[in-house]
This record gives sequence, structure tokens and C-alpha cells, in this order.
Amino acid sequence: MHLDELKTPNLLLNEGVLRRNCERMSQRMKRAGLALRPHMKTAKSSDVAGYATAGHTGAITVSTLDEARYFSQAGIRDILYAVSMIPARSEEVMALQASGTGMLLVADSIEAVAGLAEQALSLETRFQFLIEIDSGGGRAGLLPDAPELLNVARAIHEAPELELKGVMTHAGHAYEVQGFSRLREVAEQERSALVDAAQRLREAGLPCDIVSAGSTPTAVAAERLDGLTEMRPGVYVFNDLDQLGIGSCQWEDLALSVLCSVIGHNRHTGALLVDAGGLALSKDVSAKRFLDDVGYGWVSGLNGKLLEGLFVETVHQEHGLLRQAGGDLDFTRFPIGTKLRIWPNHACMTAAAYQGYTVHDSEGTVIGQWQRTNGW
Amino acid sequence: MHLDELKTPNLLLNEGVLRRNCERMSQRMKRAGLALRPHMKTAKSSDVAGYATAGHTGAITVSTLDEARYFSQAGIRDILYAVSMIPARSEEVMALQASGTGMLLVADSIEAVAGLAEQALSLETRFQFLIEIDSGGGRAGLLPDAPELLNVARAIHEAPELELKGVMTHAGHAYEVQGFSRLREVAEQERSALVDAAQRLREAGLPCDIVSAGSTPTAVAAERLDGLTEMRPGVYVFNDLDQLGIGSCQWEDLALSVLCSVIGHNRHTGALLVDAGGLALSKDVSAKRFLDDVGYGWVSGLNGKLLEGLFVETVHQEHGLLRQAGGDLDFTRFPIGTKLRIWPNHACMTAAAYQGYTVHDSEGTVIGQWQRTNGW
Repeated sequence: MHLDELKTPNLLLNEGVLRRNCERMSQRMKRAGLALRPHMKTAKSSDVAGYATAGHTGAITVSTLDEARYFSQAGIRDILYAVSMIPARSEEVMALQASGTGMLLVADSIEAVAGLAEQALSLETRFQFLIEIDSGGGRAGLLPDAPELLNVARAIHEAPELELKGVMTHAGHAYEVQGFSRLREVAEQERSALVDAAQRLREAGLPCDIVSAGSTPTAVAAERLDGLTEMRPGVYVFNDLDQLGIGSCQWEDLALSVLCSVIGHNRHTGALLVDAGGLALSKDVSAKRFLDDVGYGWVSGLNGKLLEGLFVETVHQEHGLLRQAGGDLDFTRFPIGTKLRIWPNHACMTAAAYQGYTVHDSEGTVIGQWQRTNGW
Repeated sequence: MHLDELKTPNLLLNEGVLRRNCERMSQRMKRAGLALRPHMKTAKSSDVAGYATAGHTGAITVSTLDEARYFSQAGIRDILYAVSMIPARSEEVMALQASGTGMLLVADSIEAVAGLAEQALSLETRFQFLIEIDSGGGRAGLLPDAPELLNVARAIHEAPELELKGVMTHAGHAYEVQGFSRLREVAEQERSALVDAAQRLREAGLPCDIVSAGSTPTAVAAERLDGLTEMRPGVYVFNDLDQLGIGSCQWEDLALSVLCSVIGHNRHTGALLVDAGGLALSKDVSAKRFLDDVGYGWVSGLNGKLLEGLFVETVHQEHGLLRQAGGDLDFTRFPIGTKLRIWPNHACMTAAAYQGYTVHDSEGTVIGQWQRTNGW
């Protein structure tokens, strides 16, 4: 079957590009002597995990315990749940551990650690932790020089049911800068903040085997990776317009697109209507930061060749309105039923609307259907 | 079970508020002598459809053929698929019709109609149409005075396999104004544009039994509804902060919220972290048009009482960052694990991330789990 024969909207994944993206990151991490623990929150697919972990230990990162259960059932045995753990989720983690999956958890406060120690005791289980460090992203985590860092580390280390494995960070602020030289600065902030924190733990006689950093932009751009033991990039498996705008990938590295159909011509407003709207694309507008005339995505023909200037200006729930930047749209090029591909701003958000991927080769032949998990 | 015992994030639906919203709209349409054809794209739930269609004919509106199949299987027999129909979807509609479901389709071009007539002929089926009118929303549809209107109508009427049933419109621009007096103006634009179009068809000797308008704001605010035969509001079943900002509902009319847990305190940035982020809430920011300090939603305690000034300023995929407008957040009020409710900007987009609803009463007792459909 060819892409042209598919129902729309449809989430397309180019297998060759996925493979190349995964191999490139794998090689980069191997050259640096680091473990690769890819963040599967983007793809949420065991097939993609196979590509992303090939040649490495098979360890992954997840953002929900639903993902952890899904990947555990797929046979993955080393999972970092990279969102602040709370005591109320203890039984879910215990069940995962009981099924043979090693779970690595994240904490950044005495309060959470105390509650989790109590839970581990009452559930007769053990929990392993990384302490989250804020390397500049301003989301979760302690600053590397925060006085509480050693208190949290000691609280974990001294609780018989808890084990301190190291530190982790995510430089979310890498998404706010553009170009390799700026990305390198952020990558170095990420690395040095984390290495500083690890150093503080070790100087205090506390264990710190794992020093885990990473986002796609910092993993791609970092000059120095010394002191880290692993990286956790995620969106690099697919890439998207946001990554393109930031400068962490090239156009030919984009693996994910949304197949849509032209459903109407609004000649009095000049908009081409397609059946990919806010649900099929998501309402993420992150790529607007660094790209002009991007809206909710750029548009290509079925062959993947960009139709320069055509973009999704507006979305309603099931309608996308396409316009031609700086000019009039030639409706005769796009009869009703024409199939187009939209290249989304943010692959993680777009993919979440779908039950799976229609996998295709570079010729546009469908070669598989891969499932993904969603929800919590 | 009480809301406090649920896993998070969790999509909560207040049954009493849903019931009141549905009864109010039903009564309003009955008083106006109009049929109510609720748009089920918001709820995508057969349970909600039961509330929304009670006392009416059971007709509904959908935005995808997946919804049409889902509601057809639930026994609904009169479905308007309110997105421009294309020839490639003919077999799917034929299958629905073969299962006993009456399908009403939408077209606004000779090109689509010609393709659909050809498909109907080759599939040995019949298709029924409303012509879409653009009453000011600028999405799909012909302007009421467009010369093509009569051509499209005749093309449908004269094709033996097609049947012209009337006209429809959706005043999407009602979402761009605030307050009852402005909403009434838009409602009157919607009504008069559609009635004008219907008049043109009838004067040309063409059938126009159905004159179908509606959005929640126009259905709530319209002074005049004469000339219309039915309305298709959708989000009124749940309401949301966008509708609150527009002025089409009151705070106590909001039925949908997202239960989340406090997962961290970022004291150095002043943000409270919860486990409802961009996926659990959607990245829709529509309510920002008319509400201050709304971000991705307002926040209440478990009892539904608004925590004034607390809002979701930032979302990452699974993290929400809450701030206190115009002041510092008192972290001691929100220990790790505290459950909060977030009132989303746009119910249609938020609900789409979930497999179903946790239904509760006004006391916060869980009284049911309702499934919904998603995808295409």
C-alpha cells in the first residue's frame, strides 16, 4: 500500500529517517563513552524503543507510569521514571519492580523522600533514586549549590529501604535558544551543574554512580560530556519543526508527518481546508519561536518535498486552514481530496493524539503499523 | 470512592452540572420550537449523548466518522457529519447507512458534489446533504449571497443519488467576542446569513427542510431563532474557561475538571509542580483572550472552590507549573501529594487526551466511569 491510499488524518513515520536518527545518536553517545537512556515519552512505542536502544543497554526513560508498564510488558528491564515521584504512586512502582523491571525514581525534596521511605517500609519494597538538579530549566530539581541537596541525599542514603544512585537533570532551557553556539552554552550549563552536584555528593561521602543529563538539543550540540554517565534525549528519534528552528536537526532528519486530505477551498478568505486540525496536529506552537510563517506546521506533497510558504495558519478541532505566506494560494494545484503531509511543530504532542504509527519507506510504501501507548 | 482516592491525572465530570447544562439547553430549544442536534465532538461519549438528547429526537452532530461509527453502534440513528465530506470517505458513510444510521453530510463546492455523486452511483447508495454557509466564521462554507450557492444546490438536487436537505452554518466568530450583547450580534449574523441562504434556495424552487445553525455562545445568547429548524451547540454540556470568558456560562456551569497531584515545590522559582501538563490539559490557550492570569487553567481544591489567583502558568509534557497571580505562593498550603482540580481552557481539547470520564456528584463521590471515543 502507498501513502496515497491511506485514510486521513494519519500519523506517518519514515522508517529510514528514524533509523538514521537513532544510529547517529547511538554513535555519538558511544564515541563519548556514555550510556544512552532514550526518553520514550516522544514515541511511546516498543518498536521505536528497539531502534533507540540498539547497541546500548536497553535502558530507557519514561514520563508516566503507564509508559513504564507498557515498556515493562515489552521486556524492558531498566526504566527511569523521570518525573518527581510521590508516595501515592508507590504501589504502582512496587508492582513494576515485582514484575522484574528495575525502576529508577526521581526526588528533590525531604518531604517526598520521607513519604516514600515510609511507603517502601510498609510495602516491604525498596526504591532507587536519582536526585533532580535544576541546571537552568527552572522546572523541577534543586539548584546544584542548594544547601538542601546534601540533606535530601542523606535522607535517601540513610533510609534502609531507599538507595541513592546519583543525580539527573534536564536542560529545558535549551528549547529557548537557537543555533549551535548557544546550544553548546546550555549543554555546558547542564553538564557543569550536574557534575558540580555529583561532586558535592561524593565529597560528602555519598554514592553517585549515575550522572544523567540530556535533552535532544544538548545531546546533539554538547562539546563536553565528561563527568556524565548517561544522556536521555527523546525527540531526536522523530525530530520536528521546533528542533529544526532551534538548530538541533536538519530538514531531512524529520521522520514524523501527518497525512491529511484537502477537504475544501475557501476562495473568499483564501484558505485551503484540510482534515487535520487541533486534535490531529495539537495546539503546540513552539516552532513559532524561531521560524516564520510556521503556524501549526509546514506542508509538503506526498513525496515529502516542502511546498515552500504553505503553512497551517489556523486550526479548529478537525479543520486546518492553510495559507501561502506572502502570496495567494493557487487552489487549482490542490483539488478536493489531494493528500498533503503536515510537518508538526512538536512531535511529542502531535503523536499523542494517535493510537499508532503508519510506518513507511522513502518511496512512500507502507511497511508497517506500530502501536503506541497513551494516557496515564 | 471519593475524588481524593483517584489516580492522577484524571478527567472529572460533575454529573449534576452536566445534567443542568443539558436540561437548560433542551428547554431553551424547546421554547424556541427548534430541534436540538447537540455536537458530540466535545464529549464523544454515548452516556453524555443520552443526557444531551433527552426529550429531543436523538439526532446528533459529529466531527469525525470515528464518532459516527461509535454513536451508530450506541444506537443513534440520525447523525450530521459536520465537516466537509470528500469522495474518499464514501464507503465509510455507505457502511454507516447500511447499518441503519441516517447520515447527513456537508458540502460547499461543485467539485466535491460531483465526486460524491459519482461515488454514490458506483457504490449504489444515496447521500443526503446540507450546504455549508459561511456566516462570518471564515472557515468552510459559501457566503449566503455567493453565486455558486444555487449552482451547488442544483448540482445536489439534480443528481439522482444525492438529496438536498437544507443548509447549515457554524458561527465560529462567536468565540472572538465577549459579553451577551456582542454574542447576540454574532448570533443574529449566524441566523440571518443562514435564513437568507435558505430563502435563496426556496425561491429557486430547491428544497430546504433543514436550517441548522449553532454554537454554544450563539445558542445561549440568541434573541431571535426564527427561520432556523435546529441548533448544534456542543461544549455547553461541559463548558470551560473559554466559554466563561466569552460570557456564555457562569462559573457554576463548569462540569469538567482535571484532577492532579502536587508533585513538587520549586522554591527558588516560586512554582508549584503538578502532574498535569501539556498532555493532560492540552496546549489550548483560548481562554487567554478574555481572562487574565489564566494560562492553561485555573485551580481549585477538591471541593471545586476556586483558589483565587492560582493558575497553571506553564506546561511541559507531564509537568504543570502553578503560580499565584500578583503574589507569592504559600507552599505550606500544598504539601506533596495534595490533590487539586484544574479547570481547563477548552473542554473539547482537554477531554481528547483521556479514554473516559470519572463521573462524580456534588459531594465528590465517584458515581461512574464513562468511556469516550478518540481518533479517526
